Amino acid sequence: MALKNPRADHYDRLETRAPKQREAALLAALPKLVAHAKRRAPGFTRILAQVDPAKIKSRKALATLPVTRKSDLTELQAMQRPLGGLNATPVAKLAKIFMSPGPVYEPEGRAKDWWRSARALYAGGFRAGDLIANTFAYHFTPAGSMLESGALAIGCTVVPAGVGQTELQVAAIRDLGIGGYIGTPSFLKLIVEKADEMKADISSLKKAHVGAEYLPPALRQAMLARGIRVTQSYGTADLGSLAYESLGPDGSVNQGMILDEGPLLEIVRPGTGDPVPVGEVGEVVITSFNRDYPLIRFGTGDLSAVLPGASPCGRTNTRIRGWMGRADQSTKVRAMFVTPKQVNEVVRRHPEILRARLVVEGESGNDRMTLKCEVKERPGGLAEAIVGSIRELTKLRGEVELVAPGSLPNDGKVIEDARKYG
Amino acid sequence: MALKNPRADHYDRLETRAPKQREAALLAALPKLVAHAKRRAPGFTRILAQVDPAKIKSRKALATLPVTRKSDLTELQAMQRPLGGLNATPVAKLAKIFMSPGPVYEPEGRAKDWWRSARALYAGGFRAGDLIANTFAYHFTPAGSMLESGALAIGCTVVPAGVGQTELQVAAIRDLGIGGYIGTPSFLKLIVEKADEMKADISSLKKAHVGAEYLPPALRQAMLARGIRVTQSYGTADLGSLAYESLGPDGSVNQGMILDEGPLLEIVRPGTGDPVPVGEVGEVVITSFNRDYPLIRFGTGDLSAVLPGASPCGRTNTRIRGWMGRADQSTKVRAMFVTPKQVNEVVRRHPEILRARLVVEGESGNDRMTLKCEVKERPGGLAEAIVGSIRELTKLRGEVELVAPGSLPNDGKVIEDARKYG
Repeated sequence: MALKNPRADHYDRLETRAPKQREAALLAALPKLVAHAKRRAPGFTRILAQVDPAKIKSRKALATLPVTRKSDLTELQAMQRPLGGLNATPVAKLAKIFMSPGPVYEPEGRAKDWWRSARALYAGGFRAGDLIANTFAYHFTPAGSMLESGALAIGCTVVPAGVGQTELQVAAIRDLGIGGYIGTPSFLKLIVEKADEMKADISSLKKAHVGAEYLPPALRQAMLARGIRVTQSYGTADLGSLAYESLGPDGSVNQGMILDEGPLLEIVRPGTGDPVPVGEVGEVVITSFNRDYPLIRFGTGDLSAVLPGASPCGRTNTRIRGWMGRADQSTKVRAMFVTPKQVNEVVRRHPEILRARLVVEGESGNDRMTLKCEVKERPGGLAEAIVGSIRELTKLRGEVELVAPGSLPNDGKVIEDARKYG
Repeated sequence: MALKNPRADHYDRLETRAPKQREAALLAALPKLVAHAKRRAPGFTRILAQVDPAKIKSRKALATLPVTRKSDLTELQAMQRPLGGLNATPVAKLAKIFMSPGPVYEPEGRAKDWWRSARALYAGGFRAGDLIANTFAYHFTPAGSMLESGALAIGCTVVPAGVGQTELQVAAIRDLGIGGYIGTPSFLKLIVEKADEMKADISSLKKAHVGAEYLPPALRQAMLARGIRVTQSYGTADLGSLAYESLGPDGSVNQGMILDEGPLLEIVRPGTGDPVPVGEVGEVVITSFNRDYPLIRFGTGDLSAVLPGASPCGRTNTRIRGWMGRADQSTKVRAMFVTPKQVNEVVRRHPEILRARLVVEGESGNDRMTLKCEVKERPGGLAEAIVGSIRELTKLRGEVELVAPGSLPNDGKVIEDARKYG
């Protein structure tokens, strides 16, 4: 299963471009994308009303545009069915419309490999002629179609298995000699356990590509011990494939996830549109160059961070640390909602604060909240002034604790809920 | 919703060819098809070992070839995974493999509208830009993919809804203003009832294309009364779309189902490969010109009959009466299996028998069977000789009743199980 020459084994030549070349190409495409979205997608006509597309030709300029968050979609879509006007291609010209819980509607266009999953599968060792079971659901949600279209683009033969019916899954792998699995890591575990229970020979299964949930390292190891090499990728129902793992010469999995060649990534401080320094955990914000659904600064609500350095597989794109949790840390304190946006508003009012983290503690009905602020200097009255801002912005009483720069954890959290439950 | 000019409103010009031209085209393609199947599909290399493809250029010649029955597939596929060697395209070059209960595996190739469902949907009034919910299952079985690929080929936008989750189905129709439904008639009924219960406005739904089960005329009427025009088609997981209904100028549904332009149809006496006279009910046997899966004389196990006359919609192809039940009438009599094949073997031994029907009566554990035989003449000793043949071929005692030609019902039944159960 090891790739003979992994450094040469790339999906296309885009993957090995010089990073400067890639960055130049993305930035050159940016003004056209913004113009296209403004012209064709009524939602962006409104959102970007004040924006001159020709001026959006740098990351700095991009960072001035508003972030449209995944959490805004339900409201936007209720205002304008079905896609909140964020689609540049009219619904009648699309291939499919999906419906995820919320409900949130997501489009699929008519281009081949519209979700760009082929690149991720290829990096995971999937090749033309491979027979694979796609166990993502095809009903309502896009995951099944997303991975199927990529597998077909590579030239794999797909068994559209969907989720559930574990015994049937095992029977299909055994009868057909299926070599590849696509789905969630937890469902892979269920299938393998069911095969053991049925004493079914599923040794044909050699590779698995997983996503949509956390992959425990122990599960990856346990699968490898059975001869199944697991790679993962990260994507969303709105944007398609965003980043993926690659393989080393010995078949081992390289650290981190490599960005897809399509989208432009920013990592921002949760609740804001402000990019964080390289390495700091924040919210994944994507600008998608998809012509049908040109999302500009789309806040995924997912946490990740840039992983410095290049992947040993020869792909030159930025690496990220994969999915690190959800960015939306809105929480209720004494029956009032406190949001990352409010916390960031407090920080904005006091230039002395470098970084802040609101820690909520206490027992049910007796919540205490403390804003821990990294500061270099501590001018008199600063803490008291911040307390005043907290009260004004959250309508709640909060303590303030001034701490040294670098002493807050790097986990993307703006609000930490440290209360005991249950 | 009525079509302005339905006579001109055809999917392509094949549909209005002179019947002689169509027949000539089918027969001209036959020797090439047989040669292709013999060369590329190892199963047919074996099945057609004694056949000279060049000689199979008439229906009479075709009728000499063995019928491969749907009921043979489980065994054939167990011998040679996954498709019994009936596929001419290797699995690694196919797009998908499905798994239906049995299990029986079915292929899908890479050609656009591989299942030919676009023609059926078009005749039911589906057009480019229509937003439709496809409620056939996508998981394991091919129905979802079969209808989706046709809808996409027309240019419809598909909501891949799958089966189940009735409330979600209603919400999607209401939120998106879905205009078309694809699925089973019974599931359409469930959705409409759920919408009533939820008091949800689903008046956007104007047309439905149904299949896979019997459509009660009362249900079609009830839907029409709500403004939903229902058309149906008939197809199988092995062969794709086979026949479909069309619309009259006022939007009413024409009688019968028109054959698809692809396959060659024969109606044979159940259990045999012998074509029956026009109008008589028998088993649907299809010769499929699909390059990937060139099924030659494939016995579907379904009953139907040719409906004489032409459809008023201007399509010139043969009409059939739609799906009329299952042909496989194998049954247990006094704990022994009796099959249509055995009955036909009895008939074959006695040239005096024009048509026969085995009627099984009595109460559980006390079965009686009678072979009713249509005969023109009644030479002495005939009934006794037939009784002997029955005993020899079924190992069971059976009565014989000689009746006049035309007195047996025309329902395709070779074995009638008239026992009372429960």
